[in-house]
Amino acid sequence: MTNRPWSLAECVEHYSRSGIPALSVWRNVINPDEGGIGLDQAARLLGSSGLQVASLVRGGFFPAWERAQREKAIDENRQCIDEAAALAAEMLVLVVGAVPGMPLTEARKQVADAIAALIPHAEACGVKLAVEPMHPMYAAQWSCIYRLREAREICESLAHPLVGMAIDVYHVWFDPDLEEEIHAAGRQGFLFAYHINDWRVDTQKIQGDRGLMGDGCIDLPAIQVMIDSAGFTGFHEVEVFSDQYWNGDQAAYLELILARYRELMSAAMERSSNKDN
Amino acid sequence: MTNRPWSLAECVEHYSRSGIPALSVWRNVINPDEGGIGLDQAARLLGSSGLQVASLVRGGFFPAWERAQREKAIDENRQCIDEAAALAAEMLVLVVGAVPGMPLTEARKQVADAIAALIPHAEACGVKLAVEPMHPMYAAQWSCIYRLREAREICESLAHPLVGMAIDVYHVWFDPDLEEEIHAAGRQGFLFAYHINDWRVDTQKIQGDRGLMGDGCIDLPAIQVMIDSAGFTGFHEVEVFSDQYWNGDQAAYLELILARYRELMSAAMERSSNKDN
Repeated sequence: MTNRPWSLAECVEHYSRSGIPALSVWRNVINPDEGGIGLDQAARLLGSSGLQVASLVRGGFFPAWERAQREKAIDENRQCIDEAAALAAEMLVLVVGAVPGMPLTEARKQVADAIAALIPHAEACGVKLAVEPMHPMYAAQWSCIYRLREAREICESLAHPLVGMAIDVYHVWFDPDLEEEIHAAGRQGFLFAYHINDWRVDTQKIQGDRGLMGDGCIDLPAIQVMIDSAGFTGFHEVEVFSDQYWNGDQAAYLELILARYRELMSAAMERSSNKDN
Repeated sequence: MTNRPWSLAECVEHYSRSGIPALSVWRNVINPDEGGIGLDQAARLLGSSGLQVASLVRGGFFPAWERAQREKAIDENRQCIDEAAALAAEMLVLVVGAVPGMPLTEARKQVADAIAALIPHAEACGVKLAVEPMHPMYAAQWSCIYRLREAREICESLAHPLVGMAIDVYHVWFDPDLEEEIHAAGRQGFLFAYHINDWRVDTQKIQGDRGLMGDGCIDLPAIQVMIDSAGFTGFHEVEVFSDQYWNGDQAAYLELILARYRELMSAAMERSSNKDN
């Protein structure tokens, strides 16, 4: 999604050439109804690429007023798990959903129930499920979980090795309990995925206005140190939704992404050694 | 600000005629440099209007890297307190500020220090200071306080009868600790101001995209019941920043505001009596 204008084949080609070890795949890329190339072709392309598939994005959207709708959502997520397995994706990322007007405690209970219902299928397919807390500006429609704390509480209540969290800095950078919660998640084995990007200080729009690392105000080296010290060893995924970058040359943008990523890693290493001394 | 296209004189005229007992005044309305009518004229207009002045909006913006800048902000806020006193406003609302890149704990400490420095002048003028937690989408530039909890902690640390909170539903409706925190604030006498509006489900923009009560998804009757049961007896202030409504006829809009407000109060009363039974 970060290089949205590229086809999956173009992403595979450029990422491989750049030494990027993995990517995550969004469902629209494989769904023919959305102009995607189909699951089989995507699986062949990725299987022969040498790239690992970090995750399939995205399942979820569980809460609904009617039981039939909730069951439909669970079925849809079983299909997501099948697709993740077909692509050899390590996990399915869950944007858990919300219903305008539904009390948040009720919505969160429905989310926990839905994930519990998915566990047997996730076990059968060997696919992890990663709950992603989202920024409160998406609380109305997309997610009734926007703090690490509520994501952790769901993981704790389900207490299953296939159920954990995806932490995207964009959604949680301002959380006063950030360090404490990242460490708590790490201790309990909940840290499945980690997305990096930046919050542009002059953000105007709710969507498509993210920054690349260094474009904004998030103290990314500090968060990197937290993530490392919490024992996270998974991929560092650059996930940037940006109309501005999508309108530019994607190869040049990929070079910029890699440069900014290296700068972040250097800054984090320096921060970490200052902390240790 | 809700009827932004109107002058202060037009607001006074229409609000008086509609039986609205009070209004809050934004500084741009009185500041000649921003096209305002000047403090003296505003004070005369409001003083002879019969309307009460709920608050002057807004002071704050305390954190800064340099001490000189922080002192300048404190001086500016002393002037805000003078203006509030001249208008017989009950309080000054504080948007506490944030500095991109400054750690939030440091920013919050600077906010607490600045408010402490203002207390003697607030006492001399008899003006309350209300810390307003703001939505995390304003965390980069406008406010290092976006949960009721951090606002409460600052009020507790200063422990002064002139220091409290302004609760705007737009900024806190999604807080998982909302009820608990409103009650805690009420018990400690921190509930100074209460702003109502709505979160539009299809919100696109960070600014100017608020809804009027009933336009969005906030469970306003539930929050009203919390506020009432916490002992709040101040004004119910409708505060809506909306390019859409500002572009329409303001007199018709004021009728709509009053109708929606009455609907909310009825719904809250019903909710409350269901709760009691």
